[in-house]
Amino acid sequence: MKEKSFGTLAILGTGLMGGSFGLACRRHGLFDKINGFDLLDVRLEMALERGAVTEATTSAIGAVAGASLVVIATPVGVISEVFSEVAASLEDAAVVTDLGSTKERVVTQILRTPGGERFVGGHPIAGGEQEGIEAATADLFDGCSWILTPTEKTDGEAYGRLVRIIGRLGARVLALEPQRHDELMALTSHLPQILSSALMAFAADSVSSEQGLPMVSAGGFRDMTRIAGSSPTLWVDILKDNRKAIGSVIRRFEDAVEAIRNDLESENWEAIVTFLSEARSARSHLPGKPGAPVRMIEMLIPVPDRPGVLAEITTTVGGIGVNIEDIDIVHSQEGGRGTIHLMVGGEESAERAAKAIEAKGYRVSLGDPA
Amino acid sequence: MKEKSFGTLAILGTGLMGGSFGLACRRHGLFDKINGFDLLDVRLEMALERGAVTEATTSAIGAVAGASLVVIATPVGVISEVFSEVAASLEDAAVVTDLGSTKERVVTQILRTPGGERFVGGHPIAGGEQEGIEAATADLFDGCSWILTPTEKTDGEAYGRLVRIIGRLGARVLALEPQRHDELMALTSHLPQILSSALMAFAADSVSSEQGLPMVSAGGFRDMTRIAGSSPTLWVDILKDNRKAIGSVIRRFEDAVEAIRNDLESENWEAIVTFLSEARSARSHLPGKPGAPVRMIEMLIPVPDRPGVLAEITTTVGGIGVNIEDIDIVHSQEGGRGTIHLMVGGEESAERAAKAIEAKGYRVSLGDPA
Repeated sequence: MKEKSFGTLAILGTGLMGGSFGLACRRHGLFDKINGFDLLDVRLEMALERGAVTEATTSAIGAVAGASLVVIATPVGVISEVFSEVAASLEDAAVVTDLGSTKERVVTQILRTPGGERFVGGHPIAGGEQEGIEAATADLFDGCSWILTPTEKTDGEAYGRLVRIIGRLGARVLALEPQRHDELMALTSHLPQILSSALMAFAADSVSSEQGLPMVSAGGFRDMTRIAGSSPTLWVDILKDNRKAIGSVIRRFEDAVEAIRNDLESENWEAIVTFLSEARSARSHLPGKPGAPVRMIEMLIPVPDRPGVLAEITTTVGGIGVNIEDIDIVHSQEGGRGTIHLMVGGEESAERAAKAIEAKGYRVSLGDPA
Repeated sequence: MKEKSFGTLAILGTGLMGGSFGLACRRHGLFDKINGFDLLDVRLEMALERGAVTEATTSAIGAVAGASLVVIATPVGVISEVFSEVAASLEDAAVVTDLGSTKERVVTQILRTPGGERFVGGHPIAGGEQEGIEAATADLFDGCSWILTPTEKTDGEAYGRLVRIIGRLGARVLALEPQRHDELMALTSHLPQILSSALMAFAADSVSSEQGLPMVSAGGFRDMTRIAGSSPTLWVDILKDNRKAIGSVIRRFEDAVEAIRNDLESENWEAIVTFLSEARSARSHLPGKPGAPVRMIEMLIPVPDRPGVLAEITTTVGGIGVNIEDIDIVHSQEGGRGTIHLMVGGEESAERAAKAIEAKGYRVSLGDPA
């Protein structure tokens, strides 16, 4: 079955993330045309050569002309500036998203900008310590979680379209409030980055340069310091943006480590075994890459036709860790009411999602499985 | 060229490490016969089935009969007990080594035991979070660093034979004093293990069980928590053995993390960028897996024929991070003097090694490259 094309895509910033987004969209045939813009000519040329974009434009405004989707793939520090620059030139039906690693500040700033309702904050949980268009790949987002941060101003049609595009790239959408996203990232991404860099710097400082670190080819040390190879300039932007949540999470982690050291120094081996066992058990319960496809279940939710309903329902579902496979809002002909069609994977997830949505005062009926 | 066999090998403890040692020796055809013993019959049977041992014996004493090499591959907590059990039954020319992750306590205890001079502490830097004979592989030690901890009581012939066997397995010997080994492991293995488990437990505690950790499929978090899946019972032995060095290294790491958090909270971005950049640079200088073979250089070192010389010279070389590819001591016919033939890889390493050995008062001449 040939699915319809989404027309023209604009990618602003053609590094690792933007380039990979372009390559992935080409692989899945989602757009007829991909306009690219980058401040660095050489990066834009390579994106064109690698096929991540089909046209190189000389300005951001030029890139967004005719585009139904605009992806801002710059460092987080300049995302809202880039949005302001192009806002007045967007097509009426355009959706704008970003691929940045922090969300609260960017989303808040953009929502204050004219046209901000067309923006849906995004963050695919993919990438790593590599950077640059050279490292871009068409499969970077395969099976990844892709956070979207809708707010009460988010346009429903724009949001639904974005969910479908991300789904067609093989990623799984999880809707979260911007602040909740940043807190979770402080815990699962920013703290690990600080620890990895801290461990690497600490180990290097602790041995003489004469001796080096000859024996650290041990797998554990290599694993734990891999992301210490990440770009300092990209990371300092992320740390700036999310410094409050990160500072607080580091403080709490310091306390946790101190407690472990106290157990070690007082030879409380029972506590140490309990700690190691709990960590091992938690590690074994980390969700893996998506396995066999699960049955898609459609949920029908009658809603008042007002802003914010879509954001509330989807972040409620995201808040219990359930991905959104598809979403659509069908407006009633009389106006004033509508029905959200929400698709989630697996019966267990659908039941938990229905319960959480009903707890917010909505009525949910399960449609036919797709 | 068919190289000579080393006769009979005894493996005491046929789990991941012992089993892999057996499989590796079989692959390289180093022994005619491999006796295995394990407290768990089922583990020993599987070792036999998998071909890690050629004979299953019913006692440790039975296993060491006729063996030229005895490998104690039990958890670190019982290595010295196992040595005591078999010491009186060893062949005259037998070498005994272990594969444990800590060295000082084990080596000190065994040296006090009759026959202790035949023991050379060993620690191949290989393995990971897996365990059990099921996970054993013939290539576990390929290209790994293999620490040996000779002391002044170490028998030269035993030591040289062990170096050659390890070299034939494709690993690279690094000689270190037992205490220095434990300090370095506290830094590069035990601290990472604590941090990995602490991060995993901390993250699991920080989100509600309802929400789970849906988005931590990010590569960084997965890398950093991989070894949190390691066996708590094996690790508690290691932590017990090395608790002083580990406690001290955790304390210093806590201070380093606190300093980073202070820079973050006071928005000292310059310091943060410097920290991230130093960590990145150190990561990029980690030695990788051995690449193209380097030229072997033989060093000739006339020495007095007394105990401890071999340990002193090889740990001096290990102390500057240089691996030993081969070692032999040739005794002069008059007695009282001898010459150590020491093989290292690469001219740069040979020059640094020669300088370090000369600084200890020895004379070094470089032989013909092999």
